[in-house]
Amino acid sequence: MNDITMRICADELIMSALREDVTGEDITTNSVMKEYTYGEVELICKQEGIIAGLQVFERVFTLLDSKTECEFFVKDGDEVKNGQKLGIVKGDVRVLLSGERTALNYLQRMSGVATYTNQSVKLLAGSKIKLLDTRKTTPNMRVFEKYAVKVGGGNNHRYNLSDGILLKDNHIAVAGGVKNAIKMAKEYAPFVRKIEVEVENLEMLKDALEAGADIIMLDNMSIEDMKTAVSMVKGKAETECSGNVTKEKIQKLSDIGVDYISSGALTHSAPILDLSLKNMQIK
Amino acid sequence: MNDITMRICADELIMSALREDVTGEDITTNSVMKEYTYGEVELICKQEGIIAGLQVFERVFTLLDSKTECEFFVKDGDEVKNGQKLGIVKGDVRVLLSGERTALNYLQRMSGVATYTNQSVKLLAGSKIKLLDTRKTTPNMRVFEKYAVKVGGGNNHRYNLSDGILLKDNHIAVAGGVKNAIKMAKEYAPFVRKIEVEVENLEMLKDALEAGADIIMLDNMSIEDMKTAVSMVKGKAETECSGNVTKEKIQKLSDIGVDYISSGALTHSAPILDLSLKNMQIK
Amino acid sequence: MNDITMRICADELIMSALREDVTGEDITTNSVMKEYTYGEVELICKQEGIIAGLQVFERVFTLLDSKTECEFFVKDGDEVKNGQKLGIVKGDVRVLLSGERTALNYLQRMSGVATYTNQSVKLLAGSKIKLLDTRKTTPNMRVFEKYAVKVGGGNNHRYNLSDGILLKDNHIAVAGGVKNAIKMAKEYAPFVRKIEVEVENLEMLKDALEAGADIIMLDNMSIEDMKTAVSMVKGKAETECSGNVTKEKIQKLSDIGVDYISSGALTHSAPILDLSLKNMQIK
Amino acid sequence: MNDITMRICADELIMSALREDVTGEDITTNSVMKEYTYGEVELICKQEGIIAGLQVFERVFTLLDSKTECEFFVKDGDEVKNGQKLGIVKGDVRVLLSGERTALNYLQRMSGVATYTNQSVKLLAGSKIKLLDTRKTTPNMRVFEKYAVKVGGGNNHRYNLSDGILLKDNHIAVAGGVKNAIKMAKEYAPFVRKIEVEVENLEMLKDALEAGADIIMLDNMSIEDMKTAVSMVKGKAETECSGNVTKEKIQKLSDIGVDYISSGALTHSAPILDLSLKNMQIK
Amino acid sequence: MNDITMRICADELIMSALREDVTGEDITTNSVMKEYTYGEVELICKQEGIIAGLQVFERVFTLLDSKTECEFFVKDGDEVKNGQKLGIVKGDVRVLLSGERTALNYLQRMSGVATYTNQSVKLLAGSKIKLLDTRKTTPNMRVFEKYAVKVGGGNNHRYNLSDGILLKDNHIAVAGGVKNAIKMAKEYAPFVRKIEVEVENLEMLKDALEAGADIIMLDNMSIEDMKTAVSMVKGKAETECSGNVTKEKIQKLSDIGVDYISSGALTHSAPILDLSLKNMQIK
Amino acid sequence: MNDITMRICADELIMSALREDVTGEDITTNSVMKEYTYGEVELICKQEGIIAGLQVFERVFTLLDSKTECEFFVKDGDEVKNGQKLGIVKGDVRVLLSGERTALNYLQRMSGVATYTNQSVKLLAGSKIKLLDTRKTTPNMRVFEKYAVKVGGGNNHRYNLSDGILLKDNHIAVAGGVKNAIKMAKEYAPFVRKIEVEVENLEMLKDALEAGADIIMLDNMSIEDMKTAVSMVKGKAETECSGNVTKEKIQKLSDIGVDYISSGALTHSAPILDLSLKNMQIK
Repeated sequence: MNDITMRICADELIMSALREDVTGEDITTNSVMKEYTYGEVELICKQEGIIAGLQVFERVFTLLDSKTECEFFVKDGDEVKNGQKLGIVKGDVRVLLSGERTALNYLQRMSGVATYTNQSVKLLAGSKIKLLDTRKTTPNMRVFEKYAVKVGGGNNHRYNLSDGILLKDNHIAVAGGVKNAIKMAKEYAPFVRKIEVEVENLEMLKDALEAGADIIMLDNMSIEDMKTAVSMVKGKAETECSGNVTKEKIQKLSDIGVDYISSGALTHSAPILDLSLKNMQIK
Repeated sequence: MNDITMRICADELIMSALREDVTGEDITTNSVMKEYTYGEVELICKQEGIIAGLQVFERVFTLLDSKTECEFFVKDGDEVKNGQKLGIVKGDVRVLLSGERTALNYLQRMSGVATYTNQSVKLLAGSKIKLLDTRKTTPNMRVFEKYAVKVGGGNNHRYNLSDGILLKDNHIAVAGGVKNAIKMAKEYAPFVRKIEVEVENLEMLKDALEAGADIIMLDNMSIEDMKTAVSMVKGKAETECSGNVTKEKIQKLSDIGVDYISSGALTHSAPILDLSLKNMQIK
Repeated sequence: MNDITMRICADELIMSALREDVTGEDITTNSVMKEYTYGEVELICKQEGIIAGLQVFERVFTLLDSKTECEFFVKDGDEVKNGQKLGIVKGDVRVLLSGERTALNYLQRMSGVATYTNQSVKLLAGSKIKLLDTRKTTPNMRVFEKYAVKVGGGNNHRYNLSDGILLKDNHIAVAGGVKNAIKMAKEYAPFVRKIEVEVENLEMLKDALEAGADIIMLDNMSIEDMKTAVSMVKGKAETECSGNVTKEKIQKLSDIGVDYISSGALTHSAPILDLSLKNMQIK
Repeated sequence: MNDITMRICADELIMSALREDVTGEDITTNSVMKEYTYGEVELICKQEGIIAGLQVFERVFTLLDSKTECEFFVKDGDEVKNGQKLGIVKGDVRVLLSGERTALNYLQRMSGVATYTNQSVKLLAGSKIKLLDTRKTTPNMRVFEKYAVKVGGGNNHRYNLSDGILLKDNHIAVAGGVKNAIKMAKEYAPFVRKIEVEVENLEMLKDALEAGADIIMLDNMSIEDMKTAVSMVKGKAETECSGNVTKEKIQKLSDIGVDYISSGALTHSAPILDLSLKNMQIK
Repeated sequence: MNDITMRICADELIMSALREDVTGEDITTNSVMKEYTYGEVELICKQEGIIAGLQVFERVFTLLDSKTECEFFVKDGDEVKNGQKLGIVKGDVRVLLSGERTALNYLQRMSGVATYTNQSVKLLAGSKIKLLDTRKTTPNMRVFEKYAVKVGGGNNHRYNLSDGILLKDNHIAVAGGVKNAIKMAKEYAPFVRKIEVEVENLEMLKDALEAGADIIMLDNMSIEDMKTAVSMVKGKAETECSGNVTKEKIQKLSDIGVDYISSGALTHSAPILDLSLKNMQIK
Repeated sequence: MNDITMRICADELIMSALREDVTGEDITTNSVMKEYTYGEVELICKQEGIIAGLQVFERVFTLLDSKTECEFFVKDGDEVKNGQKLGIVKGDVRVLLSGERTALNYLQRMSGVATYTNQSVKLLAGSKIKLLDTRKTTPNMRVFEKYAVKVGGGNNHRYNLSDGILLKDNHIAVAGGVKNAIKMAKEYAPFVRKIEVEVENLEMLKDALEAGADIIMLDNMSIEDMKTAVSMVKGKAETECSGNVTKEKIQKLSDIGVDYISSGALTHSAPILDLSLKNMQIK
């Protein structure tokens, strides 16, 4: 994860997460360790998957004490295996113990998202379809989860409501139809934005094409309809298939010919990747 | 969720989540709706489970506009079914659209945790064992996830490193053994704290009992050893079984006789409960 | 200005501005007014221009005391004249006095930007060219200044580094040429982004077109070259003219045929619009 | 700019400005530069003026990455010329690119204020009059703009409502006259404050002198009246001339004999000084 | 305490104090009160003194729940007696219980400062000397403690390092003597500031007078020397006596003829005034 | 004070305290010291007591300038004497001067609390009673004052409302009696919490014992009743004596046989320990 993003967008969230876990002191550690003690602890993988978030993991410790050091034997995006030693954290034992849970909470979840994404991407192998995430991320985790999707081989849809146009049913209703909605968006939106519109049937699709939409989201349409839609579009716009896409359902979407498939499950339902800190050496 | 907790601990996090999703304006909505328009939209359940987080869901909208109103037909902890109408959100359509995703992201995840917890609790039915969560929560989601565990019928373990003592292997190593660790904790920790110690074998258990631990965590022990442990403890301390407990494994732990089972999976691997806002009425 | 934007993005900045101006108490006001006193004061225009920021002006007062009321006789975007009464602020006199300067500092600057923008837009009358702002905004004023540009009849370029792609000379150098830079951006960037590239000559322009740039910025090129460029592009991309565009120079750019002209001066060098609060009535 | 002021009062504002410009990542830079790359870029002046804000400019980069270094060939207050190389920024190219706009936005505006102030001060050359700023600063820019005024050779009026007394028309009205207002202020205000009062005519001036005002502001009075006023004051108080003072009008005020002239234009209407980062060397 | 000060400067500190006391939930209250319950509780005085901080006390409750109401039978500055009922707090019992301690912690300390100040002021009765506070306040309590000093009949010295000039021994040493220090301050400081200088002997006093200091602090001088000093000053400057002034020592300073006496003890060593919430009525 | 606690819980408060004292610049220092000047200043004790808070004192300076160094000749908990040199602060003189007051305000108060606590603890010498603090701390000072109590030889009661159960009169009233209140708390509270209940007479005590309270607070009971209470408890619970305990009253409580005595006075009424920075050497 880029240092600038970390500094500007992640540090505050990580500090807030640390404050969630320490609201005074780490009583247990302070009971038994009154003084600075140098130690090292290993980051061990306990499950097969894709690792993501090593810089965030490290930042938890360096925010607590800038002298803490992490040595990693893998990098984000690498496949990791049960039992594999991924790295070593070195520094004040009290920092290692007090930061452990928060550091792992980030790394496990980010790696979980990367792993789930990667498994989904592999199911689309052979097609040209790119897999997209959504805004269905965990609150205050977007910057981490969107990054993890990329590490897993997925692509990012818009980051939030401010940096992408997506005209949905209610917007269309208010605007009085697909064509008018697209027209209004073209007038209003910053000129660097593509206009995406969600269509539910081929009628709406036709309107969207005529009005010059840049991207058309086929929302909860049947596979058959989606194939027809793609043939109607003929490259005049990009196409995105959307609607409850999970790992289980994705394979049968691999030959409908759309450019993109978006899946909320990548960020809202991926289980974590099991990791732990083991073999503390106190020196 | 208690109003005071909401005000003191949740509001800042919810605002931060909203700022994640709007870093300037909701361009799409602003393209098509220039003015205040009153509307109502329904909260629909799309999957069976336990609902949790309705106050948080509502708060997302009222933080955006205090005049928004939510009418709910269920309350936290209720079982909900696919297709069930859970409530109505009423107010400025722009608020309903801009707040929708953040509100659902909270409610879906909290309900997912409550649902997973509830399913796990039911697997322990008949035993006296209480199910506990852990500190393996999503960063910046602890206050929400710990609450959801309770709604689902689980119990909370310590909230963080500052409000509970849990002597783990590394603390014990530094202290020079179980007995010494417990002695140091009793001396150091605020007197309102119980002393919990993690033991990996019956030897350590014996030491823990002799040193007067209040709670003993049996960590990754075999079922047989746990049964022996419980009989050794004979009520002289509370007992907690811990170690990779998931819904899948929990049933076979129901008759080992411990007081508590703790499971990280409740918060780190529960999939969301599918919910959506539908049937917008613009008035 | 939209209420949601205000709540999520502006309130914190406005509070910070108020804290700049009151770091303890308003000693002068407190010297002479010990108690709540109801009063009204008029917002008077002292210079011809376009008004922008009335909601921000009001928010300064309502953030200080939610019971303060503003009655406006104009709305954002209206032309205003010297001597015109634009509105009345009503409430606790101490709030009116303590908030006055901060409220006016926002309103005067935003109206200054809208006025300068509007004058520039008028100089392009008759052409199809749209006038764009830049990221040359005052620190911590972007959300206000970008809004003011729109009120003045201009259009917004990207909001910041995260929501738009703009490949400049250094990006191109690092990437090893225009074509490669565009290819890398297409691979990396969220799919909702258009790819804009800055070209300094017709060679680069040709590469940009071949690589499929969505928008081409003609940076500091001669009027002649720009005309040639536009004819080369022939609608295969959007074109933007950029480089030290001020009100003084803009007219001679009106017939070069580009789609957009961007001008940093709109936000970095517009003088304020003179406004004041007068005729306090204490009741 | 003093390091302590920077740390206590400026850092938060600068970080907030950076967060305005990066709400996730710098997509363009990240598209083409995946790794740390060392580079240097020159700070070039493109317009004659006074430079102000070099420490702030540097801080933008060091807040992003503490290893970034700035070498300057000028210091705040120096006259700079079109084409002059003012300094070199050295470090991670991604930091140089992502911080460029924010750093320049600060430096250009501060230098603009210093330049405008300096030009105004020179118009008063020969007189003993000191030029003062006002509270008409850009929201969240006061600490920077007030500093720039000093760099340009001006003096600072009070910083905000908490650190100076200035009894204006409405305060006087509420207090029931000039004398009473001054009496109330003397009783209420911390004893380290001078009492300043705004007078609109010679009657009020007389009262102010009798009541022992420390400073008298002659507000929007005719040149003739101001001369009479000064002769009435005869050194019994300091005198300040105020009211729509711009560079254009200031010269004819140079012989009225007041101690101070205050001008809101210094901070609210100074155009920026044009500067840019050029000649990136990637190493 | 003024509403504007409260809103701009106090609310954040009060919220921070509440977050100190509730880092998740009030477990005790939530154990026994699951639902909203209306109640009333009395604010009872348990010690003679001066009450100060009633608005702050109220704000603690209204920040938790804006519907909470306080009815007071006294106002800030009133003398209160043991057993006296000072007010009633009305609202959600959970809010009354969770806010009680923080509200009392503010009110008791502020009233303690007001009481100690008032006792000190009375010891100066008959003289014209005004009693001043210092910057020796409790961290993050200055706005509250300085206010309490005024309520107790004292006066405020400068609020902080930014709003007052006080040249101490080290400043004088660096400047190369009293005269030079005063000259440098006059040149540097905003013109609304008075120049105060600390002198330790009559030599320095003479220099200070010649250099035109506005205020002269006689620091840790003997009573005899202070009397001589006052006669040397003869009204050419204001005089302040300083140095370990406590209630115990203050009376013998009452006839030395200085204008002001400053005492750090007012804020750093005043014991609290004992108050409590009693007689909860649940309805 | 532990570095992790400092980083997570103290830094923000210390920065906030510094911002209270510098809201722009330290004008006095900046008047006379335009440039970095290296200097050293001594920390001198002016009163006998226990020192506490040296790390916090140091942090004030290192937060202003990380290059400032403190050399201490004592450590927290040491007895210090009038005239004793406790340490040297070395660095930029401007940092030493601008940070002085805030650093001393923390150190004096923390040392005052430690000193008062220590004196109280000594009065209990010979008994087994442990002295506890309360939640009657200064707002935004809890983390510092609770630490100081420990340094002085006291013990900490619960940190706040979230990490300890204490059933008071109103909780008991709502629950419908002592037994029911304890039952409800056992059901609701996280299992790591001990249940403490406040009793006012022997009747309630009996109920509390039968219901299995872990700790019983004897609130404002007569010495005789407390002795009876202790004999009734016979080790079935821990006992705490509470109610207006000050240094003056504590000795006569030393033989009543309770396990703990709690005293609000430790934090709410301890006078400061007098300390100062002296003998500045400028080099």
